[in-house]
Amino acid sequence: MKVELNVLDFLYRAVEVFPQRLALVDDPGVQGTLGRLTYAEIGQRVKGMASTLDAMGYKVGDRIGIVSPNAGKFLISYFGVSGYGRILVPINYRLNAEEVQYIVGHSGTRLLLIDPEYADVFSGVKVEQKLILDGTEDKELFAPLREGASVPEWLGDEDFACSINYTSGTTSRPKGVQMTHRNAWLNASTLGWHTTVTDRDVLLHTLPMFHCNGWGMPYAVTGMGGTHVVQRKIDGESILSNVEQEGVTLACGAPAVWAATLQGAEKRASEGRTIPGRDLMRVVAAGAPPPSRTIERIQGELGWEFIQIYGLTETSPLLTVNRRLKEWDSMDRAELARKLAMAGTPSIGVKLAEDADGEVLAQGNQIFKGYWEQPEESAKALANGWFHTGDGGLYQDGYLRILDRKKDVIITGGENVSSIEVEDVLFQHPSVAEVAVIGVPDPKWGETVKALVVLKAGATATERELQDFCRERLAHFKCPTSVEFRDELARTATGKLQKFKLRAPYWEGHDRLVN
Amino acid sequence: MKVELNVLDFLYRAVEVFPQRLALVDDPGVQGTLGRLTYAEIGQRVKGMASTLDAMGYKVGDRIGIVSPNAGKFLISYFGVSGYGRILVPINYRLNAEEVQYIVGHSGTRLLLIDPEYADVFSGVKVEQKLILDGTEDKELFAPLREGASVPEWLGDEDFACSINYTSGTTSRPKGVQMTHRNAWLNASTLGWHTTVTDRDVLLHTLPMFHCNGWGMPYAVTGMGGTHVVQRKIDGESILSNVEQEGVTLACGAPAVWAATLQGAEKRASEGRTIPGRDLMRVVAAGAPPPSRTIERIQGELGWEFIQIYGLTETSPLLTVNRRLKEWDSMDRAELARKLAMAGTPSIGVKLAEDADGEVLAQGNQIFKGYWEQPEESAKALANGWFHTGDGGLYQDGYLRILDRKKDVIITGGENVSSIEVEDVLFQHPSVAEVAVIGVPDPKWGETVKALVVLKAGATATERELQDFCRERLAHFKCPTSVEFRDELARTATGKLQKFKLRAPYWEGHDRLVN
Repeated sequence: MKVELNVLDFLYRAVEVFPQRLALVDDPGVQGTLGRLTYAEIGQRVKGMASTLDAMGYKVGDRIGIVSPNAGKFLISYFGVSGYGRILVPINYRLNAEEVQYIVGHSGTRLLLIDPEYADVFSGVKVEQKLILDGTEDKELFAPLREGASVPEWLGDEDFACSINYTSGTTSRPKGVQMTHRNAWLNASTLGWHTTVTDRDVLLHTLPMFHCNGWGMPYAVTGMGGTHVVQRKIDGESILSNVEQEGVTLACGAPAVWAATLQGAEKRASEGRTIPGRDLMRVVAAGAPPPSRTIERIQGELGWEFIQIYGLTETSPLLTVNRRLKEWDSMDRAELARKLAMAGTPSIGVKLAEDADGEVLAQGNQIFKGYWEQPEESAKALANGWFHTGDGGLYQDGYLRILDRKKDVIITGGENVSSIEVEDVLFQHPSVAEVAVIGVPDPKWGETVKALVVLKAGATATERELQDFCRERLAHFKCPTSVEFRDELARTATGKLQKFKLRAPYWEGHDRLVN
Repeated sequence: MKVELNVLDFLYRAVEVFPQRLALVDDPGVQGTLGRLTYAEIGQRVKGMASTLDAMGYKVGDRIGIVSPNAGKFLISYFGVSGYGRILVPINYRLNAEEVQYIVGHSGTRLLLIDPEYADVFSGVKVEQKLILDGTEDKELFAPLREGASVPEWLGDEDFACSINYTSGTTSRPKGVQMTHRNAWLNASTLGWHTTVTDRDVLLHTLPMFHCNGWGMPYAVTGMGGTHVVQRKIDGESILSNVEQEGVTLACGAPAVWAATLQGAEKRASEGRTIPGRDLMRVVAAGAPPPSRTIERIQGELGWEFIQIYGLTETSPLLTVNRRLKEWDSMDRAELARKLAMAGTPSIGVKLAEDADGEVLAQGNQIFKGYWEQPEESAKALANGWFHTGDGGLYQDGYLRILDRKKDVIITGGENVSSIEVEDVLFQHPSVAEVAVIGVPDPKWGETVKALVVLKAGATATERELQDFCRERLAHFKCPTSVEFRDELARTATGKLQKFKLRAPYWEGHDRLVN
């Protein structure tokens, strides 16, 4: 018997087996929050959403966008939109209106759901229909299935997209990654297995839900009947107090999230307060190679287990996993942290290789079917039956180490910033002759964006002026936090910037390789 | 990207990530045993097997039979045969020569591998080629890949059979269940997830490897890089000493296996010896609904976690799983055991239903594609898009209880009696070692309830005493109207009671079918 894999399978089990379990603790910090719901209630709201979308005239294959920080309604949309054959387009709420407009237009999004705090920012975005998630405009969409209302049937097709997730991209425009139900299902179940998700887990949503659908962890935790605790804004003390109050056992996030947690813990320690979750919590980190010192502190100072995974939006994302082996039990903390700082081993079903240039290649059912309406880019990314990650790495003895982004992407606070995109903006400034944008180490964000600028002869500009110029044109997180003026920039004989040379002085003494 | 699921994926990961790990501790009790091998060595032997089969002229799609108790070579055959597109036919070694001949002929097996202890028993079986697994005849087949030899490429097809597993069948002839790579892969990964298989696991092969390919657990444990400890013969003390000596953490088997283990533990306790594995071991039971008293004793006396699963050969087998929920943590042992005596909750990706007769129906990707060359039987089993289990059950509140094989339900005076429920009560009596409850003809009630009982060594009990024991605990109509004492009860190779054999003498000359 062949049954089409569908992300709705995970919710089906939760509603069947755990109807009275606490499913959701929504973040109270916003209008229209859902509060605390059981799986029976979630199930009814998911059906209600599908039914209402049907009544509103949205068909199988239609794209429904959502631009929102973490929220209970995002969780419902994973199932209420995708589970019935519509395609969710989760959009980074930190993009600016022009960038969101591009994604809405490119994806052909018909309905856009907007978090109330961002209603003004995105008020100018043109789309067929917009709804603010304020509990009023969207009241019907997130209500339980009405008595007598029908739920649209969708037989399913596992090779159909459940979502289109736009990458921040290394080219000037983001690309829409089509994640199929099969991609998402196999990613979630292998991730759930490798991280031993059980019915006892309480997941704190410290990872943006738009980012690769929370890496698939929301599906896995739902399938096992665990509880979701939503956190809109990331700061260390809020994470610690959620862990304490809600009995959190599991959380995902970029290294910057755990750095913030460590800061929160330091503050607690200085006040003589306890750190919750010792020996219970496990954190799953990805998005940037974490400093081994951060890993050591998470395991030592917090007593939380650190698990690293590696992947990209194009890979759903699970390509590798690194979790303490039994052979490492006797290591001291620093040595163990160095082991865990590697990207890790291929997860079940994944094959890895390197090409002649050291680019990491991957095969597996988590890998996307192609970019939305970009056949040439898709063919290039999936050439010769392998996905080309764009990352430079070293794969040996079953372990992958990521050496550098081949294309110089800067990863700051878990967000990918294309240096080219920022350079393009700076180049538009009348005083700028040459520019190189690089990532430099930052204790909070892992990396932060720095611009190295050569001014035109006779022209002037201040750091602040160039930063303001960027802020008018780019999402805040993409803008340089510092600008340095130079007389010239290191280039190859053919005129290409040698970024590894430009980065080197900033990275001395740090873990990141700067080749 | 769509990659064809292949059971070889599990071994691929083990060889990549854990080449130097101990993979196999073969049972020393037979000629031709493989001893202790690492995953690198297993990988080389699997490739060697595929290469040798190729050189011997066996093609993709050819059937290769194996009739053997548990053995390291069985583990290698799971991958060396199936992984390269040939179809493994695992045969119950306790069948007689005529039955094996039927399976060989029906499946079109070209090559039959025979355990040395069974060489004489099956010497008369006619097949194109036979090899005894004695280390001599099969030397080349289980040798590491020879230098310079090539491994046959198979691109894979997840809907292709990896094995044909013949059911023990309650009808006159066994049926060949075609298990696809997709069936096996999704079964193994959801089983691995639900039972939290990790790289730290050491699996004791207490379950016959021919039985549904060890329920898929060998694939799951391999994928995580765990260790396989092979046990040819089941007795309580051997299980306990393997747990002790090899650091076993996980084992699968029918309830009879755990009853034998409890007997072994009683003996150890009486000798003042310790019981190994406390708080480390988890046992996965299926194949028959276990008495709740057995569950209670496993958890209490051994300190091992009891997990129940339910399924059939046709379902790879995982349909349901029952593992202690957090809500049950505060229950006393007896109450917890009653909870765990249910078949359990649908596993990830499975849907359950009941038809009007109370027959359990199931949907899921673990369910087989059909019987080998029995299109009518296949169509019947898979009618209307559901698999018809043949089991009578009750599915409510997300939990399945198996009441009986449909044909084992006793209908007395219009009431349905679950023989399992009555057996469960009789098992709680301190003198009872084994029990089978069957329906026998009755002029007044049509059928009436009879108990066949094996007493514990040295114990005594009268018919009246056991009847009274039941009446205190069960509705009157469910209580045995007669009890017979026996020295032993007919069982299948996997430890299941053969109720049709037990019933047969009573029904001679009557209408009821006793198959």
